[in-house]
Amino acid sequence: MSKLDIFKKEKRSRQSKRTGDPATQYMLDYVEGLGLDTVFTRQKRYEEKFMGIFPKTGRCDFGSLGICCRQCLIGPCRIWHKDVDLPLRINAPMQTRGTCGATADTIVARNWLVYHGRGCAAHSTTCKEVAETLLKTARGQTTYQIKDTAKLKAVAKKLGFNGNQTDEQLAEKIALTALSDIMGKPDGVSNKGGMTFANAYLPPKVLSRLKELNIMPTSSFEDVADADHQAVIGMMSDPYYFVMQSLKVGIADLMALLMTTEIHDILLGTPAPAPTKIGMNVLDEKMVNIAVHGHIPTLCEKVIQWADSAEFRDKAKLIGAKGINIVGICCTGAEVLQRHKIPLAGNNLQEDLLIATGVVDAFLMDVQCSYPSTHAMAEQFHTKIITTMKDARVSMADHLAFDPEKADEWAKQVLDLSINNFAKRPNKNHLPPFSPMNAIAGFSAEACIGVLSKIDKENPLKPLIDNVVNGNIYGVCLVAGCTSPKLATEETYHVLVKELLKNNVLILGSGCAAGACGRGGLLDTAATNQYAGEKLKKLLSVLGDVAGLGQPLPPVWHIGSCVDNSRAVNIASALAAALNVLIKDLPVVVSAAEAVTEKAVSIGSGAVALGFPVHVAVVPPVLGSPMVAKLLTADMKDLTGGCFIVEPDPKIAASQLLDIITERRKKLNLPVN
Amino acid sequence: MSKLDIFKKEKRSRQSKRTGDPATQYMLDYVEGLGLDTVFTRQKRYEEKFMGIFPKTGRCDFGSLGICCRQCLIGPCRIWHKDVDLPLRINAPMQTRGTCGATADTIVARNWLVYHGRGCAAHSTTCKEVAETLLKTARGQTTYQIKDTAKLKAVAKKLGFNGNQTDEQLAEKIALTALSDIMGKPDGVSNKGGMTFANAYLPPKVLSRLKELNIMPTSSFEDVADADHQAVIGMMSDPYYFVMQSLKVGIADLMALLMTTEIHDILLGTPAPAPTKIGMNVLDEKMVNIAVHGHIPTLCEKVIQWADSAEFRDKAKLIGAKGINIVGICCTGAEVLQRHKIPLAGNNLQEDLLIATGVVDAFLMDVQCSYPSTHAMAEQFHTKIITTMKDARVSMADHLAFDPEKADEWAKQVLDLSINNFAKRPNKNHLPPFSPMNAIAGFSAEACIGVLSKIDKENPLKPLIDNVVNGNIYGVCLVAGCTSPKLATEETYHVLVKELLKNNVLILGSGCAAGACGRGGLLDTAATNQYAGEKLKKLLSVLGDVAGLGQPLPPVWHIGSCVDNSRAVNIASALAAALNVLIKDLPVVVSAAEAVTEKAVSIGSGAVALGFPVHVAVVPPVLGSPMVAKLLTADMKDLTGGCFIVEPDPKIAASQLLDIITERRKKLNLPVN
Repeated sequence: MSKLDIFKKEKRSRQSKRTGDPATQYMLDYVEGLGLDTVFTRQKRYEEKFMGIFPKTGRCDFGSLGICCRQCLIGPCRIWHKDVDLPLRINAPMQTRGTCGATADTIVARNWLVYHGRGCAAHSTTCKEVAETLLKTARGQTTYQIKDTAKLKAVAKKLGFNGNQTDEQLAEKIALTALSDIMGKPDGVSNKGGMTFANAYLPPKVLSRLKELNIMPTSSFEDVADADHQAVIGMMSDPYYFVMQSLKVGIADLMALLMTTEIHDILLGTPAPAPTKIGMNVLDEKMVNIAVHGHIPTLCEKVIQWADSAEFRDKAKLIGAKGINIVGICCTGAEVLQRHKIPLAGNNLQEDLLIATGVVDAFLMDVQCSYPSTHAMAEQFHTKIITTMKDARVSMADHLAFDPEKADEWAKQVLDLSINNFAKRPNKNHLPPFSPMNAIAGFSAEACIGVLSKIDKENPLKPLIDNVVNGNIYGVCLVAGCTSPKLATEETYHVLVKELLKNNVLILGSGCAAGACGRGGLLDTAATNQYAGEKLKKLLSVLGDVAGLGQPLPPVWHIGSCVDNSRAVNIASALAAALNVLIKDLPVVVSAAEAVTEKAVSIGSGAVALGFPVHVAVVPPVLGSPMVAKLLTADMKDLTGGCFIVEPDPKIAASQLLDIITERRKKLNLPVN
Repeated sequence: MSKLDIFKKEKRSRQSKRTGDPATQYMLDYVEGLGLDTVFTRQKRYEEKFMGIFPKTGRCDFGSLGICCRQCLIGPCRIWHKDVDLPLRINAPMQTRGTCGATADTIVARNWLVYHGRGCAAHSTTCKEVAETLLKTARGQTTYQIKDTAKLKAVAKKLGFNGNQTDEQLAEKIALTALSDIMGKPDGVSNKGGMTFANAYLPPKVLSRLKELNIMPTSSFEDVADADHQAVIGMMSDPYYFVMQSLKVGIADLMALLMTTEIHDILLGTPAPAPTKIGMNVLDEKMVNIAVHGHIPTLCEKVIQWADSAEFRDKAKLIGAKGINIVGICCTGAEVLQRHKIPLAGNNLQEDLLIATGVVDAFLMDVQCSYPSTHAMAEQFHTKIITTMKDARVSMADHLAFDPEKADEWAKQVLDLSINNFAKRPNKNHLPPFSPMNAIAGFSAEACIGVLSKIDKENPLKPLIDNVVNGNIYGVCLVAGCTSPKLATEETYHVLVKELLKNNVLILGSGCAAGACGRGGLLDTAATNQYAGEKLKKLLSVLGDVAGLGQPLPPVWHIGSCVDNSRAVNIASALAAALNVLIKDLPVVVSAAEAVTEKAVSIGSGAVALGFPVHVAVVPPVLGSPMVAKLLTADMKDLTGGCFIVEPDPKIAASQLLDIITERRKKLNLPVN
């Protein structure tokens, strides 16, 4: 497929529909009617004509193709390329190397790696943060507690720690191991065998393959520093090694996720499935609405706890509110959704629209995916933005520097700020006239195994394996990642998921992708009858009965935040180990269709490194180098067994994913359709 | 000054002359006559007309102004800006925010910070590499030795280690401290007070200021990871905090340099001034020529040692060569120049031209500043490129993965490969008809103090202070950094340095900037009479006598590689401590006029953070945000006392630097011109 065709397909998607969620469309119309810009508004301008007449080149082709280089102060360099639109192309020098001599292959591969460094750094510093909270808790320096001792012991056992120790001793060891896996050990000899958690959690066969390929992560900060170093002018120029480093950093990222999930579960509890609501109208105009956003739920736990105290219930009433309503956004939203069934108001693209309802009194923001668009919108409404982490400072926000040792104090300050701001509400609110969707959330690996163990207590994986073997579950697809204005937002996931369900593919969902499924009604038990193929429908009904729900399990299992993609990795690892095969042999696929952040890129590469096929519907900026594009999408199958699949059309993507599942089933001698 | 004016000035510089070195110009004409491209050739194409008729916009204005954003998969985003050339501007959407809502201020500041992460990662991984070599040496695992025990003891004393330990014990402690400063301590509590080396080496007053500003570095990998994290979409948006993090990462970078210099000196010896040669014609067509390039001299030490053995001398003769001639390029070149007086053949922009002479039999490359242009050129000639580090892989090169435990073996392999390649020389060589320049190199801080101590044994800093006070030394300027094809290459340094010398400003030089001074004859003792002001001339003559040279010291003191910028920091710190003032009060300035790499950017910010004014003649990509540009060049003076000065014309720059020196002298009540 030529470059132009695939970009046109992407464009067709976004021009067909801006969003698959009617409430989002409604608020978008309202906000644009007020003359205010949203992420969607600014996206659309790339397709407008100049002064209404002259067609524009829209987004820069050099950047879109990955051949824009801004590494050093000699640049920026643009490389001559046939696929660059003419008005841009003739303005660039006629040469196929940057000034320093870098080829398109080097530039594309280097730009690609650079995403991974940022993505992995984000997840690793998050992990460092929560590991330090666990450490302080183990040392009695916080008011957090070890909430799930069974999980604590299970993690300790995985890591090979002697069970005859107190919970606090085990927690301290787990925290220190996680910190060493993030930061490395500055003793000049350790960690050469790779991250401890990777060695403990990944199946031996997978580990051998990673070591053969020389992509076993050392520690995430070291691997990120190496990636940064490789990307400096006059360093690496071989595109192959850039891509291999992107895989290594990707696995380091996945391990940071895994450690974070495990520590979150230990500290905050391991989720179990239960009903909740998803949609913009979980906001309640009669209550003090606090939207919690970001990726580190530690402070929110305390906010939730104190919001339910007589002290703050009374304060809210005193000011004329019915009470305090906490709603989630993005991944902190997914965290409190899975553990407390706090309703989910929106994802990365609905932040600014939620503020425009006029009923969000406070917007609590820790780290990642809070767009400046939201802060600009808050300036137009009464919403108070409260930032809590040093690495995500916003000019117009109130800043409370979070410290786990003072978590209760901080949570109370957040509540006071929120309640006080209720009085500043505008006279008119504007909530969209759509009810939120019913949803079940909280499918931790432990919860899934828990349900299965009711069928086979001795070997809880057996029912899962049996059903994969007999085709009741034809395959498994994880839908993960962000939602993007470059496509028919959320709709991409809806179409893809429905196509797969029809073919008896069980869906796991995480992060904003899972939220999108929720808004599409796909986390509801009713969706099973509507969308699942006959075999899958029957199985989900049995499982629903076994779980005591009295109705089928939903067809999309919400496994948590983006961090909790690790739950899917753990399930796949357990399956691979049980079957004594590699992950690349399993009928398990991934779609991060609407990927936006650098984190999605590095998790994606981590998944490819472990052997998953990873679909994206947005076109990644690699087409300027056919060599790199081929390495990522084709040659990679011979290296890790995984690969990237780029396909903006979700129906076609679903059929490609089904083909891979079929192919893998055939190799395992399982029945195929 | 408007954006257009300053870019035009930069353009005028490069159009006036491509290089200040006649040998470089000669080789450039030769190579372009062969129809081959160099870095200079590709630079020039940005100013050519399309098909010889239509004027082009040259380098992309969005990138040059810093308002091109490629952080996430929604982008690339271009921001509407009045200073963008019309053909480009009308192709961008008419909006002043990126799709996510990021303003020009956020985008510019974020892009600026991103350079620093890469720069600091480069120097930090280099430091980690050499610290591990010291550790292994202390543990008896290499054939390296602790060459300078006086330096070892001095460093140990600075760090507060008990002197009653063996050299090996002290070396191990120093290495482990350096590793902890790079990697942090994964125990959840340490390093919160900042890097150990920073606390030990910087004057207390400076440390207090850094802590007040909250820019005391924690450990370099942590600070880099934080910077990477902050730069992720939806994280930091406040431009002020981006810039403050760039300062923090900059200081972490300077500390990585400092640790590397100290360890290099311990392991390889502390340099002392002695004569050598600089220029392309240090290549000898009758000998096996090995060019050593990069930034980590450890392997080269062994190559130098074995090249002088009977075994390899005989091997060279057997193949018809007169012997083995090792020449330096870039900073590995500066390292072997300062310690062994191995002649320096070229810098970052002469690599490809040197290969085109046809007499470079091997090009040994460790890390950083080896441009792909060089590798492309090597494909046209017989030169064998040998890479030695995993982070700098080049497709067409031979790769020997360096391991300090097998250094001798590796060095012998390098020599064998080089000698064998001599036979493959083309029939015709092409060396430029210019003799190399005489130069003195090796001005370590210890060597400078050594000379001064001959004047005042008790207080060796006193003669320096006295001469600064009485105006024999009106001020000190460090010229540092790369050479850039965006300016009249090297000429910028020559003009700037001559202007300052005339005004009795003593010059310290490092890295490729010092190499440029060398090619301009400014490291020669003869240059003192020719260029130094009367007062400085007299002083340098006295010091030359005291040092036993029988002639004046040169007016530019070559302090070593880029890593050795730390020597200048140490001298300034000692001066500030002796005078009980801040570094920002000293009449000491910096010019990295022709900065190219990300490393130069982060060292520059580190220097600004410590209180140095730092001149650059290339225009950094920040003009798209007047707020960020003002913060870096003006408001910074109220924060750290340092600032960036952007001025492409070296005469004007010199006068600006002189004004700052005068202003600072006035504040210290010193006589001024």
